[in-house]
Amino acid sequence: MKILGIVLLLMITLSAPAKTFQLKKKHPKIPVERIEPLSWWVGMKNPELQIMIYGPQIATYRPEIHYPGVKIERVVTTTNPNYLFIYLYIDKTALAGKMKIEFWKGDKEVFSYPYLLQNRREGSEEREGFSSADVVYLLMPDRFANGNPANDNHPETIEKVNRNDLNGRHGGDIQGIIDHLDYLEDLGITALWSTPLMEDNMPLTSYHTYAISDYYKIDPRYGTNEDYRRLAAEAKKRGIKLIMDVVTNHSGTAHWWMKDLPADDWIHQFDTFTRSNFRIGTVQDPYAADSDKKLNTQGWFDTSMPDLNQNNPLLLDYLIQNAVWWIEYADLGGLRIDTYPYNHKEAMAEFNERIMTEYPNFNIVGETWVHQPVEVAYWQKDALNPDGFNSELPAVMDFPLQDALQVFTKEEQGWDKGIMRPYFNFAQDYLYPDPYNLLIFADNHDTERIWEVLDGDIDKFKLVFTLLATTRGIPQIYYGTEMMMRGVKQKGDGDIRRDFPGGWPGDTINAFTAEGRTAEQNEVFDFVKNLLQWRKNNPVIHRGALRHFVPENDYYVYFRYDDEKKIMVVLNNSEKEPKTIDLQRFSEMLSDVSRGRDILSGREIKDLHTAFTIPAKTAMVIELE
Amino acid sequence: MKILGIVLLLMITLSAPAKTFQLKKKHPKIPVERIEPLSWWVGMKNPELQIMIYGPQIATYRPEIHYPGVKIERVVTTTNPNYLFIYLYIDKTALAGKMKIEFWKGDKEVFSYPYLLQNRREGSEEREGFSSADVVYLLMPDRFANGNPANDNHPETIEKVNRNDLNGRHGGDIQGIIDHLDYLEDLGITALWSTPLMEDNMPLTSYHTYAISDYYKIDPRYGTNEDYRRLAAEAKKRGIKLIMDVVTNHSGTAHWWMKDLPADDWIHQFDTFTRSNFRIGTVQDPYAADSDKKLNTQGWFDTSMPDLNQNNPLLLDYLIQNAVWWIEYADLGGLRIDTYPYNHKEAMAEFNERIMTEYPNFNIVGETWVHQPVEVAYWQKDALNPDGFNSELPAVMDFPLQDALQVFTKEEQGWDKGIMRPYFNFAQDYLYPDPYNLLIFADNHDTERIWEVLDGDIDKFKLVFTLLATTRGIPQIYYGTEMMMRGVKQKGDGDIRRDFPGGWPGDTINAFTAEGRTAEQNEVFDFVKNLLQWRKNNPVIHRGALRHFVPENDYYVYFRYDDEKKIMVVLNNSEKEPKTIDLQRFSEMLSDVSRGRDILSGREIKDLHTAFTIPAKTAMVIELE
Repeated sequence: MKILGIVLLLMITLSAPAKTFQLKKKHPKIPVERIEPLSWWVGMKNPELQIMIYGPQIATYRPEIHYPGVKIERVVTTTNPNYLFIYLYIDKTALAGKMKIEFWKGDKEVFSYPYLLQNRREGSEEREGFSSADVVYLLMPDRFANGNPANDNHPETIEKVNRNDLNGRHGGDIQGIIDHLDYLEDLGITALWSTPLMEDNMPLTSYHTYAISDYYKIDPRYGTNEDYRRLAAEAKKRGIKLIMDVVTNHSGTAHWWMKDLPADDWIHQFDTFTRSNFRIGTVQDPYAADSDKKLNTQGWFDTSMPDLNQNNPLLLDYLIQNAVWWIEYADLGGLRIDTYPYNHKEAMAEFNERIMTEYPNFNIVGETWVHQPVEVAYWQKDALNPDGFNSELPAVMDFPLQDALQVFTKEEQGWDKGIMRPYFNFAQDYLYPDPYNLLIFADNHDTERIWEVLDGDIDKFKLVFTLLATTRGIPQIYYGTEMMMRGVKQKGDGDIRRDFPGGWPGDTINAFTAEGRTAEQNEVFDFVKNLLQWRKNNPVIHRGALRHFVPENDYYVYFRYDDEKKIMVVLNNSEKEPKTIDLQRFSEMLSDVSRGRDILSGREIKDLHTAFTIPAKTAMVIELE
Repeated sequence: MKILGIVLLLMITLSAPAKTFQLKKKHPKIPVERIEPLSWWVGMKNPELQIMIYGPQIATYRPEIHYPGVKIERVVTTTNPNYLFIYLYIDKTALAGKMKIEFWKGDKEVFSYPYLLQNRREGSEEREGFSSADVVYLLMPDRFANGNPANDNHPETIEKVNRNDLNGRHGGDIQGIIDHLDYLEDLGITALWSTPLMEDNMPLTSYHTYAISDYYKIDPRYGTNEDYRRLAAEAKKRGIKLIMDVVTNHSGTAHWWMKDLPADDWIHQFDTFTRSNFRIGTVQDPYAADSDKKLNTQGWFDTSMPDLNQNNPLLLDYLIQNAVWWIEYADLGGLRIDTYPYNHKEAMAEFNERIMTEYPNFNIVGETWVHQPVEVAYWQKDALNPDGFNSELPAVMDFPLQDALQVFTKEEQGWDKGIMRPYFNFAQDYLYPDPYNLLIFADNHDTERIWEVLDGDIDKFKLVFTLLATTRGIPQIYYGTEMMMRGVKQKGDGDIRRDFPGGWPGDTINAFTAEGRTAEQNEVFDFVKNLLQWRKNNPVIHRGALRHFVPENDYYVYFRYDDEKKIMVVLNNSEKEPKTIDLQRFSEMLSDVSRGRDILSGREIKDLHTAFTIPAKTAMVIELE
């Protein structure tokens, strides 16, 4: 039996290190159902590795490893004998290979498992994360494109495809994304954030995939782990980094460990269902009641989402390793962490710190959904927080700017209204340790779509998008925005997550092609593409300095500049009035240039010292020389 | 002539060290028009004293002083020969007396001036400034009470009394305030902030007195310097500290120095009238244009208010000494600094630091009129500012709370609306180095009156006022609020600064007495008085800890507690519904108490472990034991 075990396991390991283990089902005599991470690498900066083994009474076995350069540091068991946590120390000298994990009882080796240690991809440690040099495209895989109708349903997962249900599975998948990478490259996209792709085996609304049931397995309705790895590789070929959406705050109730928790404190448990109060401010509030603070971090995000306790060190190691595993396995270019402030903050600081130590040039952005810059800034690495807290989180999301972007084009300038809104947002950037590492966006999969907010007004959109593409930060576009996709949050989240037309076989309209788009859609698509392709080649927008002037007379002027180049952006937010831009006011930025060219209209500006006019509701992006 | 000069000056000095010098008019042969400060004190912590002397060609004289313990440190002249700045070093050994300042030309003493050095009031250095133990009453002297109709007009000042003009002089004065100190004491007031009383000799709207024309002289229409000193003394007898409103940002165009500026950079000068852009955010904004930053601090506050350059060290010394002079002379209990963020911030940091070094237990509050806690916090001493700036300003004004107080009773609870507004404000107190040293208020002389905002609704007012009187900070009441005075900002500032009924001889209504007030006014007056008198004797409200719970179901519960006492405040903000307060939720604060008494209604609460009810739009302040 011992030998049989090795052979069987070996076969599985070699054929698919990325497949989830369901060993028990296939080999009922081996007392191991899960071994995670599925594999590991030699030459990691962090020599420690936790291997979690799940199986009936597995804690009654004594693990042994005899592999050059590897030793068992410690073995941790919990109150649940079905779990065993082996902590390994993997020396610099360890070589890739199959490392046999032996399971002993007394002086007898009962069975063993050949654990795969691989060599890392070249340059893995130095991998570059997404940055302000990139433009991020956010999509929901179920709703973007169905490249493989054969996997719309899968025997292992409960919910079946139903494209007529707003909140149902529509069949989009990884192949669909791969099929349209050329489209994204053409549009000027350099980073791709897909909402989660790991298995979410909830019976309903599993399409959003935030109730993960297996952290090591791509949902079979999207494809396989191997497909995901292929997506990253194909994207990379086109200069597009892949960002994984990571959910550490909660798993799904359908997660396999929910039937047999590793420890009582693996999740936060209550006598009856207890939802988070979602009051993120309690984290900093000096007067907050203990009960409110507890509810915020420990309450469940939803009935389907048990709240994980990242303060359990075994779980924290598990979550960190899971992220590292996907980075190494799939060759990722970034992480996005869901519902960031509901996690235990100190634990997540360790999460970030350990990942950024492993990959110093990487990037992680947290979903910091709060509405004031000072609240967002609290969560960025090295913020000067009165409580001394350092999140170690490099990037945060600029929700306050989103608030401004959704509104400013619809208002005349007031003391703090209209075009003043984005100005005020940027004026508070002193609060951020690194304002260039803010993800900036007009909408996302949880908010009203920008085209709905603007009621389809192209002029307004151009102002919003020009600002997004030329100010500091990392612009993020929500899929479909480039072809004017609308969606009403109040109709249900499904409506802001409509299918991309042309993504499904048989779609009558194919908005992925110029022919399939309306004239208006093409105007918008071309505007977006023109600006993004220009942005790609202008580092001055990525890292150049920003200087702005208090908006007056309903227009806003700012400059991006570095040693090489200087750009002047003018946004005339007036509904009806062309504006004369009196250049005297901007002389501190114009003294060393004499003419310019608006890259949006192609218009030449020959005099930069007196004045020029700009039509109503129009943006100009002027290259100065 | 020399001897004559001494004698004449001596007489003036002895009779009224506080009178403004207008020497030239009276004694045309003596080439000195002004000597400021008017006098000084021995035994100050800061041994340095700047004496500014103004007179035709005064800089051509060489000053000498031969007085034990005093030496001339340096003599500073400017491009204007009509000013001489003598910096003295006053040793610890110097005694009070008349110190002769001699003015020489070559080897001849031409004339001299006997400068008065006085002994300080006992305990002057240790004087206590206003604090969260106090309640501040803000009044405008022209509009509170006319105690001396004889000074309504004065030959030296231009604008004459006209009580029919909303923006005219109405005749209120210092005697009027003194006459009603008993009234204020009875109401529970322990600190008095009067808007400025120094001479404002503008031809129009001089009643607001923020365009000061003489920093060493009480406006004769309010009384004399001596009257002001008497006001402080009479207030002190009643346990009321006097807070002076100090204007460092600008003087009035009618200021005497405007005709003959001490230096070109004494004020900020422009080719044409240039108003401030009032964009305080440019101070911190990392992207702000130089021109915008300059406009903010250097632009004039109004046509009548030339912007002083506190960066001129001679002026800064002058302003600091002026404040110290009034503190010593009148025996003040605090300063309020007008339009704080428009000053040069580093210069004002020195202003505060030097005053607080001289009086370590004193207090200074700046008018920090911005709308987010983080913006206000920037200006409080020891704030953790990313730019390293430390204002040294001990107290700031909680304008964000004012915004909340003006609105919350008029809205049902939403995610961030209604009763959530004050909650959110306090939840951000981590941003303040000392949230207890915030001046808190529902209205002031520049804003809509709270009774106007609440449209006379007594229930709403009681909620607002209970919150103000029981939360952290220093409550400030605007005169007339206790008798429901209304006022509409849009009708002009004059309307929010109406005369207090009964303050003028012949007024048909006298709201200073219970008989003169309506039943409703008496209900409000008694409510305010009851709460303030209770507050006065409950240090737990002054410095006790605060713990609050996220409002739910339209009510807000918080606790104030220290080693001695515990108070539970309940605000039911619901328009119509009584609420059952489920006490289980507050068990972390209730475990050590068993019963309570609402000091507002007198109601006994016998069970603190299950629940009690509270009527709609009602506050309870429960003493627990």
